Amino acid sequence: MRLFRHGAVGSERAGALDRNGVRRDLSLLVPDITPEWLSPDKLGALAAIDLEKLPVVSDGARLGAPVAGIRQFIAIGLNYRKHAAEAGMQIPNDPVVFNKAITCIHGPNDDLRWPQGSEKMDWEVELAFVVGTKAQSVGREAALGHIAGYCLANDVSEREWQANRSGQWVKGKSFDTFGPLGPWLVTADEIPDPQAIPLTLSVNGAVRQKSGTNDMIFTVAEILSHLSQFMTLLPGDVVVTGTPEGVGAGMKPPQFLKRGDVIELDGGILGSQRQTVV
Amino acid sequence: MRLFRHGAVGSERAGALDRNGVRRDLSLLVPDITPEWLSPDKLGALAAIDLEKLPVVSDGARLGAPVAGIRQFIAIGLNYRKHAAEAGMQIPNDPVVFNKAITCIHGPNDDLRWPQGSEKMDWEVELAFVVGTKAQSVGREAALGHIAGYCLANDVSEREWQANRSGQWVKGKSFDTFGPLGPWLVTADEIPDPQAIPLTLSVNGAVRQKSGTNDMIFTVAEILSHLSQFMTLLPGDVVVTGTPEGVGAGMKPPQFLKRGDVIELDGGILGSQRQTVV
Repeated sequence: MRLFRHGAVGSERAGALDRNGVRRDLSLLVPDITPEWLSPDKLGALAAIDLEKLPVVSDGARLGAPVAGIRQFIAIGLNYRKHAAEAGMQIPNDPVVFNKAITCIHGPNDDLRWPQGSEKMDWEVELAFVVGTKAQSVGREAALGHIAGYCLANDVSEREWQANRSGQWVKGKSFDTFGPLGPWLVTADEIPDPQAIPLTLSVNGAVRQKSGTNDMIFTVAEILSHLSQFMTLLPGDVVVTGTPEGVGAGMKPPQFLKRGDVIELDGGILGSQRQTVV
Repeated sequence: MRLFRHGAVGSERAGALDRNGVRRDLSLLVPDITPEWLSPDKLGALAAIDLEKLPVVSDGARLGAPVAGIRQFIAIGLNYRKHAAEAGMQIPNDPVVFNKAITCIHGPNDDLRWPQGSEKMDWEVELAFVVGTKAQSVGREAALGHIAGYCLANDVSEREWQANRSGQWVKGKSFDTFGPLGPWLVTADEIPDPQAIPLTLSVNGAVRQKSGTNDMIFTVAEILSHLSQFMTLLPGDVVVTGTPEGVGAGMKPPQFLKRGDVIELDGGILGSQRQTVV
């Protein structure tokens, strides 16, 4: 299934794409896509719905992040070799883990806010996974079984804040609007191999990132297993898994976002995003 | 007011100390101390309750963390000069910010879980503040007005995970039980100066930390103002503000927690905690 949330900011309702890719309104059966709807049982029940009998949602409707009530927004750093190199950092021995504030979670096509005075606002296309069942000390083999689904993410960053404000990275990753997610939460049954997702990002029409999750240093299964050794993951927790090479900070000379820039992201089956910096 | 939460894990209810320090059950009026109860209006309404007319809660009742539904658990590092020195780190130019997982939030007297294989489990007595009203880009002068109250915290840490697992610090700060908070949420009206709170911690009866918030590098007002430039803070967000010198990692030779150790913390008006490592 490809689930989504539609409507005005703060009053989004549940939806799902039918087999023809038509947007259908789920909200008479399921008011919203909240963490409790992400268990295998609940997702199984959703799959029993004949979506073509439900009302159509207009293609023009605004989309929100595809999960409501996210409790933890976790990010992995330096998870692609060429990105670590362009950032001037060493390849990590273990996944680098930091947080994004949950208050930066944002719709996939909503405007990005340029922070007043920002000089180094940057883009990062990423695969995100969404936890479906509580995960504590999970082995790699069982890890994918804890994932409800996947979505596309832009891990928007302010490099000056991330690197030069005494740390840690959460400072440069958490400004309002810096966490677009979606459009679709693609359930895990549709993505047997999360290491085969293409990821591209362009700025004002020029392709800046073009890679795929097959280039990750630590796989999705390794990341979930690793995190679950250090903390308990809850249903609805979102983990963005690192970005490939091609960020603005890595260009020669570096190039950062300014007002009016348009960013387009594509993640194959995960769908696409489009944001304007305002 | 000094608010608390009493009852079994996961089913705590609201309480408050009366003027004689007797524990009273608030739950017929206020089911639980959730973020929406932390606004100035709601706290003002709570202050109108004649606590002595409410049922007594037994002194033996278990206490939970004094706020339910905490959405962000943020921590400040290296905020005391002598602690930065014992950690072998430079005095930061700006507050060092990292997260603790919300899943590590814990009652003030509940047992601490020793992680299997842990070699460097450590203690950190701290002042925590709890946000009462949404804070975005707040100046220092207005910062304390966004705080609902304060509580005592033990920022339990695993130093090996914090320092030597490729980063960032969240990894060593987030294991289940690593975030005892309470016993009381002391409302801000009772603490006109948050920089005058004594903090002590002992392990098996030996005093290890003895300092106070007057020794902080960045004050509570500076921390809230700083954070609010980088992210939006929500009602119920908890920020632990750094620990003074005297952690196990700073001892010569270093000394870490093992099963059976008893940790006692005291924060003056904030009350005291007592944990056993199991």
